[in-house]
Amino acid sequence: MNVQPRTLSGFMELLPRQQQLMESIMSTLRETYSLYGFTPLDTPVIEASEVLLAKGGGETEKQIYRFTKGDSDLSLRFDLTVPLAKYVALHYSELAFPFRRFQIGKVYRGERAQRGRFREFYQADIDIIGDGKLDIANEAEIPAIIYQTFSKLGLKRFQIRVNNRKILNGFYTMLGLADKAGDIMRTVDKLPKIGEEKVSALLTGELGISPEAAGEILKFIAIKGGNQQVLEALEGYRGRSELFDTGLDELGTVVKYLSAFGVPEENFAVDLTIARGLDYYTGTVYETFMTEHPEIGSICSGGRYDNLAEYYTDKLLPGVGISIGLTRLFYVLNEQNMLSQEKNTAPADVLVLPMTEDLSPAIALATGLRNEGVRVQLYTEQKKFKAKMNYADKVGVPYVVFLGEDEVKEGVVACKDMKTGEQTKLDFQGTLERIRGGLAKRNEGPVIVA
Amino acid sequence: MNVQPRTLSGFMELLPRQQQLMESIMSTLRETYSLYGFTPLDTPVIEASEVLLAKGGGETEKQIYRFTKGDSDLSLRFDLTVPLAKYVALHYSELAFPFRRFQIGKVYRGERAQRGRFREFYQADIDIIGDGKLDIANEAEIPAIIYQTFSKLGLKRFQIRVNNRKILNGFYTMLGLADKAGDIMRTVDKLPKIGEEKVSALLTGELGISPEAAGEILKFIAIKGGNQQVLEALEGYRGRSELFDTGLDELGTVVKYLSAFGVPEENFAVDLTIARGLDYYTGTVYETFMTEHPEIGSICSGGRYDNLAEYYTDKLLPGVGISIGLTRLFYVLNEQNMLSQEKNTAPADVLVLPMTEDLSPAIALATGLRNEGVRVQLYTEQKKFKAKMNYADKVGVPYVVFLGEDEVKEGVVACKDMKTGEQTKLDFQGTLERIRGGLAKRNEGPVIVA
Repeated sequence: MNVQPRTLSGFMELLPRQQQLMESIMSTLRETYSLYGFTPLDTPVIEASEVLLAKGGGETEKQIYRFTKGDSDLSLRFDLTVPLAKYVALHYSELAFPFRRFQIGKVYRGERAQRGRFREFYQADIDIIGDGKLDIANEAEIPAIIYQTFSKLGLKRFQIRVNNRKILNGFYTMLGLADKAGDIMRTVDKLPKIGEEKVSALLTGELGISPEAAGEILKFIAIKGGNQQVLEALEGYRGRSELFDTGLDELGTVVKYLSAFGVPEENFAVDLTIARGLDYYTGTVYETFMTEHPEIGSICSGGRYDNLAEYYTDKLLPGVGISIGLTRLFYVLNEQNMLSQEKNTAPADVLVLPMTEDLSPAIALATGLRNEGVRVQLYTEQKKFKAKMNYADKVGVPYVVFLGEDEVKEGVVACKDMKTGEQTKLDFQGTLERIRGGLAKRNEGPVIVA
Repeated sequence: MNVQPRTLSGFMELLPRQQQLMESIMSTLRETYSLYGFTPLDTPVIEASEVLLAKGGGETEKQIYRFTKGDSDLSLRFDLTVPLAKYVALHYSELAFPFRRFQIGKVYRGERAQRGRFREFYQADIDIIGDGKLDIANEAEIPAIIYQTFSKLGLKRFQIRVNNRKILNGFYTMLGLADKAGDIMRTVDKLPKIGEEKVSALLTGELGISPEAAGEILKFIAIKGGNQQVLEALEGYRGRSELFDTGLDELGTVVKYLSAFGVPEENFAVDLTIARGLDYYTGTVYETFMTEHPEIGSICSGGRYDNLAEYYTDKLLPGVGISIGLTRLFYVLNEQNMLSQEKNTAPADVLVLPMTEDLSPAIALATGLRNEGVRVQLYTEQKKFKAKMNYADKVGVPYVVFLGEDEVKEGVVACKDMKTGEQTKLDFQGTLERIRGGLAKRNEGPVIVA
């Protein structure tokens, strides 16, 4: 030994049982995204800096892992949106639009390391990209995808909050504050954190807005209630800004199709305080909150944008997308003890312990079970029986199968359920059925438990 | 537009339909590895250089992507073995041994870019790590895993070639050439490329071996035939080197259990010319060849090693592992036209084309199909009918569903099979069954076709 092994801080490296839960989450995401017609994509982790940083600057630039190799100025991707923009611009003529893709991949940001912040983390993104235009129905479908995704994962108490930037921008236009809309939204975003009074002070102070207009703004974003109530209240503003009216129509369409998309009312709310910081959102915007853990912030966000790839192409490519910060979500779920303790996270369903000199019968049994789709580990180390059972306990394997001379002669298999302790001696088929039944029960629950 | 979009050379970026095939391959690998009790692992792409390069040097060092971020000297992983060694040493007390893990992940090597060579590529590795000891049965199981993996992928004509380094080292010890064993093996490795005469010349020339010994070596590695024949020929050498005898026993054990592990004779051969370049293999070594494409070289290689993590721990951690260079394999299969043209690579199984003003019935239909596990894309763009059908053709979707006022009234669905052109008007259940039947047929074939 000459080097102390370590993993860099800010980099998640899971132990096997937790990794199994992470894999289960990823597999659910892949499945759900696929159900909605999204195709999987995989782009390089490294891109030319010139390409990746085409948009330039901002806060991200400082955080980027950028380096040279030979003559090349390279950077690690810091999100999956920029690589998507590059991909769509580069392969434009070979893609069919609307282009729906999902990507689950690692991204890199050299942030200051702190608890729950990661420098390497998975994002799970979906985007729908139109060529020139993109129908509003796509924006209406997004809440359904968010709902299905988290429901399948087992999350129960969550709410998708939706707003429309056209409504906000239209409203500020009515007040003659169009040029300050961005600043106002960033200020209003702080409402849950600093309260109405301080927001009002910031609006009239820093931003130089009249007290009347500030009052209008606070009154506007205080509009609350069921979806229909909010929509009705917004109707009161109709006719004063074309942009506002378009936004209201769009929001109406999103709400209208919710039930056909299978999204229950309780998991969805129109929320006029949702603005999303980024300037490039132009229509519907989404955030998703765990209702009992608002302190965690949004676990799935995104929105409609008008021009995905302006830095790479003159084609107009509007789109709508959402992103899940998967590594952080996993971290939070784990911290909150919301990950299932029930799910089978062992590397195998069955541990076969051969009790004969010749391993052939045990190997044949393992091969037979594997052919039936059962995950089997053969344990052939020369250890005491107790050590073998300790191993079974430690990896948490559901079943242990013993195969001695007697069993081989009788054509049966001794099989112990490690949870109940119950042991059976059945033939291959009987053992297989028992194992399958038990596994089905064990795996029926979701990975997230409330 | 201000930057020409591009992807770095040496970095694979697939179009959607090819990506689907790649995903299908990865999913088969995950499934197969899991059947043998391997647990998935995911380690950071970035490691501290000091840790990653603990072993130091060699040819790899030049190729490594190494850079600094803040005060940290960082490197991108160049294989999955070193991160595994670090992982096992670091988490030793929390793991159960034998520890079986698989990892499918990207690794980085800044090689000179050329056709079919990649700087970012997937490796798909499995390893079994013992604590102090590791039973030979684990080495016997590896060919079964290789066989299952490639068979499930659909590859037919391939052969797993196996040797044992103890046999080779023992043999060279008999000849009094133990200290030259490494050099001899590297020379003998060239046999298929340069022929017997040139190998002989190298042995007697560069390596200074007597012509008699060179003759013995060439005679030895010329031992060919069925597995039993080769083993019998090797028995003729027994009793002259303890190491050789151990190796022969081990090889015998590997061969003995083949049929119980379900590996057909034709897919397996003992091959005394297989040595594997790396010095750290100490027992059974494996290579896998596509019998009709020997020029491609081994598509899955590995072997037994005695000490995985000597740079990180004083614990003795012997293991056995194999690796598939997935990106290169995919590239080769594609070049050889061995990837299925039949498999459904569309982003969805069904494209729903609403023909009504109100989208609710079409959305409800899509939701219903998705609830049954059918992958559905709703196409809601305002386009001419022909443009919509062109879209369906371009993405290769198997079924298109039309839903007009008439169908809604009659409670039926018009559904067109895009391959046969056949169109049906059936109720939801009838349509679902037809789609399911068609998809099952379409997806029954493997991803690799000979």
